[in-house]
Amino acid sequence: MKILLKISYLGTPYAGFQVQNNAPTVQSTLQDGVERVFGARYAVTGCSRTDSGVHADAFYCTVDAEGYGGTLLQTPERIPDAMNAVLPDSIAVLEAREVPADFHPRYSVISKEYRYLIHNSRAKDPFLTERAYHYKRPLDVALMQQAADHMVGEHDFAAFMASGSKVVDTVRCIHACQVERDGDRVTVCISANGFRYNMVRIIVGTLIAVSERKLAPQDIPAVIESRDRSRAGSTAPAHGLYLHSVAYPAAAFEFEQQRKEDPDGQ
Amino acid sequence: MKILLKISYLGTPYAGFQVQNNAPTVQSTLQDGVERVFGARYAVTGCSRTDSGVHADAFYCTVDAEGYGGTLLQTPERIPDAMNAVLPDSIAVLEAREVPADFHPRYSVISKEYRYLIHNSRAKDPFLTERAYHYKRPLDVALMQQAADHMVGEHDFAAFMASGSKVVDTVRCIHACQVERDGDRVTVCISANGFRYNMVRIIVGTLIAVSERKLAPQDIPAVIESRDRSRAGSTAPAHGLYLHSVAYPAAAFEFEQQRKEDPDGQ
Repeated sequence: MKILLKISYLGTPYAGFQVQNNAPTVQSTLQDGVERVFGARYAVTGCSRTDSGVHADAFYCTVDAEGYGGTLLQTPERIPDAMNAVLPDSIAVLEAREVPADFHPRYSVISKEYRYLIHNSRAKDPFLTERAYHYKRPLDVALMQQAADHMVGEHDFAAFMASGSKVVDTVRCIHACQVERDGDRVTVCISANGFRYNMVRIIVGTLIAVSERKLAPQDIPAVIESRDRSRAGSTAPAHGLYLHSVAYPAAAFEFEQQRKEDPDGQ
Repeated sequence: MKILLKISYLGTPYAGFQVQNNAPTVQSTLQDGVERVFGARYAVTGCSRTDSGVHADAFYCTVDAEGYGGTLLQTPERIPDAMNAVLPDSIAVLEAREVPADFHPRYSVISKEYRYLIHNSRAKDPFLTERAYHYKRPLDVALMQQAADHMVGEHDFAAFMASGSKVVDTVRCIHACQVERDGDRVTVCISANGFRYNMVRIIVGTLIAVSERKLAPQDIPAVIESRDRSRAGSTAPAHGLYLHSVAYPAAAFEFEQQRKEDPDGQ
């Protein structure tokens, strides 16, 4: 049976989500936790491959607990407490539920929202170390929003993808791109049906370039059309980035009718 | 000449503010930073002796830079950048100004506000580790506020002071004591003309005891009157506590008239 976990993590101690040799990752830490709780080493599959230092307010992953014979799955509401008791403080399991065997945490996604936090102040903030990009010069949020408006819609975002990526399909639809200031904190919120590698960080770097008058808001459509990475801004640092929310279609959670009628749920 | 620094710090890496043998403290770290920036080891005096793990949104300390002959003090607005360049990320210098020789960062205080942050949720929050007290059972904020209202005013707070303290003067005036909820974050804000050792943490522990129905709000006046530490609640953990603001009388910043008229400012 397949379990979907909603988790949250501070990315600072990890070399990203995905398992790597010789570096702690969120995935390997979760797999260790699952092994302690379920008594077997099951595969953990994530909704995204976040980079080293990137955080998640909400992240989804599945545990393929095939053949698990314990009692924990009869009461999945007990899974978060059981997992949290063995995981480090930097990873929290918020919710757990059983999902159909064909649910895939990455392929089933219909939209995601990333948030990028900038601490925009001359002085540093000890509480935002490794949690926000410290940018000292005042940002022009109104001008950044004008540029952000041009990002919205279905576009080929090849210019906003890390160069060297071998992905052919670079068309994505950005549903919303908002730049908001709260005191010395500037947040860029971007939701889309999908993102290419480094796409949010390059968009943020481009919006900062607009604030710095290196690009004008009305240049953005031409930058997009160029499909040329060198026309966009630089890549903002990883530690300001948060995966904020992930949406799945309701149908992805539905079990087959036969299954629902089976009192054993097997 | 005496320099007043407004700083902010994350308390997690420190064994409190005050210098100790064989443990990093905020004071020793500041004195090291001052030595690098001013080229001499000057005494740094703080506005409070915060405990190990306690944080500060705003904290004031003076640097007794007697005999300093450098140019930095001619432009004190350059001091924060110079200090921040040598201090660890966990301490930030926000402002610097010259103050009269008789200014004392602790004795000149007229009021302080502490805030105590409780993360009130069954699941942990990876972003609040060591930054909030994780309290799992739902808190009754309305009931806690009723108890908090009884704390306001001039009282003898001997019952709310760490036992074993040898302080005779335990009368303090609490100006405000507010309990506020924002989602799963509950903050207790207490401002007073002064605080005894562990006073905020014991008040918070007592408000939690009220939420847990171990005490009733109307019991608080009798607990205060008893001057008996054992009648109050337990001491809430240090890592939820933040020194939030400190107020000095305007007169404390005024230099003598003679001084003002001296064009050298000496």
